[in-house]
Amino acid sequence: MSCKSDININPHFKKNVQELVQTHRFDAPVYVTRPHIPTLETYAKALSPAWERQWLTNDGILHTELELALAARFDVPSLRLFCNGTVALLTALLALDLEDGEVITTPFTFAATVNTLYWRRLRPVFCDIDPYSCNLDPAGIEAKITSKTRAILPVHVYGRPCDVESIQAIADRHGLPVLYDAAHAFDVEYKGRSLLHYGTLSMLSFHATKLFNTAEGGALASPNAQLHDPLKKLKNFGIEGEDTIIAPGINGKMSELHAALGLTQLENVGEEIEGRRRIAIYYNERLAAVSGLALPKFDSDTIKSNYAYYPLRVDGEAYGMNRNLLQLHLQEFNVHARRYFHPLCSTSSWCLVEPGRLPIAEKAAQEMLCLPLYGTLSLESAAVICDIIMQLGAIAHKTL
Amino acid sequence: MSCKSDININPHFKKNVQELVQTHRFDAPVYVTRPHIPTLETYAKALSPAWERQWLTNDGILHTELELALAARFDVPSLRLFCNGTVALLTALLALDLEDGEVITTPFTFAATVNTLYWRRLRPVFCDIDPYSCNLDPAGIEAKITSKTRAILPVHVYGRPCDVESIQAIADRHGLPVLYDAAHAFDVEYKGRSLLHYGTLSMLSFHATKLFNTAEGGALASPNAQLHDPLKKLKNFGIEGEDTIIAPGINGKMSELHAALGLTQLENVGEEIEGRRRIAIYYNERLAAVSGLALPKFDSDTIKSNYAYYPLRVDGEAYGMNRNLLQLHLQEFNVHARRYFHPLCSTSSWCLVEPGRLPIAEKAAQEMLCLPLYGTLSLESAAVICDIIMQLGAIAHKTL
Repeated sequence: MSCKSDININPHFKKNVQELVQTHRFDAPVYVTRPHIPTLETYAKALSPAWERQWLTNDGILHTELELALAARFDVPSLRLFCNGTVALLTALLALDLEDGEVITTPFTFAATVNTLYWRRLRPVFCDIDPYSCNLDPAGIEAKITSKTRAILPVHVYGRPCDVESIQAIADRHGLPVLYDAAHAFDVEYKGRSLLHYGTLSMLSFHATKLFNTAEGGALASPNAQLHDPLKKLKNFGIEGEDTIIAPGINGKMSELHAALGLTQLENVGEEIEGRRRIAIYYNERLAAVSGLALPKFDSDTIKSNYAYYPLRVDGEAYGMNRNLLQLHLQEFNVHARRYFHPLCSTSSWCLVEPGRLPIAEKAAQEMLCLPLYGTLSLESAAVICDIIMQLGAIAHKTL
Repeated sequence: MSCKSDININPHFKKNVQELVQTHRFDAPVYVTRPHIPTLETYAKALSPAWERQWLTNDGILHTELELALAARFDVPSLRLFCNGTVALLTALLALDLEDGEVITTPFTFAATVNTLYWRRLRPVFCDIDPYSCNLDPAGIEAKITSKTRAILPVHVYGRPCDVESIQAIADRHGLPVLYDAAHAFDVEYKGRSLLHYGTLSMLSFHATKLFNTAEGGALASPNAQLHDPLKKLKNFGIEGEDTIIAPGINGKMSELHAALGLTQLENVGEEIEGRRRIAIYYNERLAAVSGLALPKFDSDTIKSNYAYYPLRVDGEAYGMNRNLLQLHLQEFNVHARRYFHPLCSTSSWCLVEPGRLPIAEKAAQEMLCLPLYGTLSLESAAVICDIIMQLGAIAHKTL
């Protein structure tokens, strides 16, 4: 048995998999996630205050309501809504006056994190990640700080909290702002309060693929109110009053159509988390016995998880096939797991890092696979997915 | 009689105005525009295909339908939807590989036009405008072209076509791309076809204040298909396939919630234009006799107007009070005219141009005032607005 890369290498393997497909294939695609969407009636009802006022954007009544509700939910003095998380991150860089120089960040993240740096001519300086959490490893940060360093940009990957205290201690020693990409971290708590209390600013994403979504959307949250007013202006072209443009701001506004969708979810996002928790716990129980699979841990003494993702780690040798093959074979069953995050951002042509320099991140990018996880995924479907994964491993062991 | 700047200068003036307010004040605010919005039922119905698929963004079915419908409407081979016009313009600069150097543009535009240049380190080089159209005057362009010039960025202000042929001839002579800010130019035609057929790319805005709106939204259109595929990738983080990021793209995606709103308007935007036309013609008839007011011209042999704005030009001496005072007094009547465009972009601190260098634009920024104009504005309301403007001028002549 060895970890093969050719999907068709062995006729016995192929035959066994085909037999399994016959009995276990889903009729409809099972995606890695499905957006939490209210009924159309509920959504239309949520929209009616905007319709009554015939006001669709620019600080609408629903926008204000959602902004305040989220600030209250996370108990932060500042939260600003944006049209999406990427534009929020861009605006944060402008608000913090970060331009040129270097930003220390992680290669194990979605492209948006690092792309935004490019727009401000900030060179990403990549640090390797912690092998379990897959978050920026604080141990590597300090050695990368130079006179050109302007900020630290860690990511709470899969909603797992970064080592916020160590990162803050380093930032304080060097007088650097910390901008968190908290795209995954809605409702995550660390030591009894929202994770958004850490760092200078945190960016949330409300994209349709996120736990809490506004179709497209995002926010910047902060544990202090210092940037609350500037951010409002910067996301509205830098306009202050009718006569003054204070800075070359952007259009980062969230419309009433998106805000209304967010409002419909505020009450039942807890239910969505509970639905995901049930599936995640079930995956953990069923897959615990499969050799070669490292399973995610969730709630702990200090962390309240949001169960946004189910990141599975595949040791190809021990499991019988590598992560890429597992993903490909799952597709034959109409199960669409995703390789969050592959490729590493450090492999992009405009910030190319020599292979081998970020070994832990490179390994994670080869091994991590997110299984389908959403509130309306049934336990029955999860059971079939577990059966498939267990049997694919067994077939690989027998025939490869 | 002279043009005064102090609103309270003369007790007779004040008294006469107050009497007029008594009889002519609107109970509800009359804004410069109101978004064209379908009934909530119509909107919900338009959304249902997205709800059926539980698919809210990323190339949704409604997004594709709107993209194709608009490309067909304007008969252009390429049209891409965006979350807003500003992000569309930013993405255009990336797609055209415009960075550093200089861009020749107009100071008489909304802040977004020039702000986007800043994000790409392109220095705006301002040319003065044509005194009638208020568009970039081609006569000034060539003298400003240097080895650093990277592009020309004209704006079809109020939807009035730029001198597209002269601009193209200059661009061709110097091998420069022309990027049009066509935020106002939905449905405008020049010589029998959409104005979007001119230039390398044109940006449309579908903000709620625009003739055709998606609450927040925008598009890039082009007379050729060369950038059609790249733009799709660049507005989705530069992602190509699952494994490659071709460029540091942005999130410029339009959601299904916004696309659905656009689809509801496709059929009746002609009606909206007709409604605005009726009011614009009425304003022109009623205000023609008022000395000191220069009125807009619309359709001509070569131009099919969209009646998106009603830009009035106020000669303070001849009318009796200047534009700023007229705007302020109109507010007393609950009439909210807007100074499009004031201040000039060239006065922003990050691109400060010495006063006096752009005399025609400076004068326009002091004199232009857009009156309320939208399809549901009644002729009765327009009549009252005309009465107010005529009588304010008369009172000013008598008492100031």
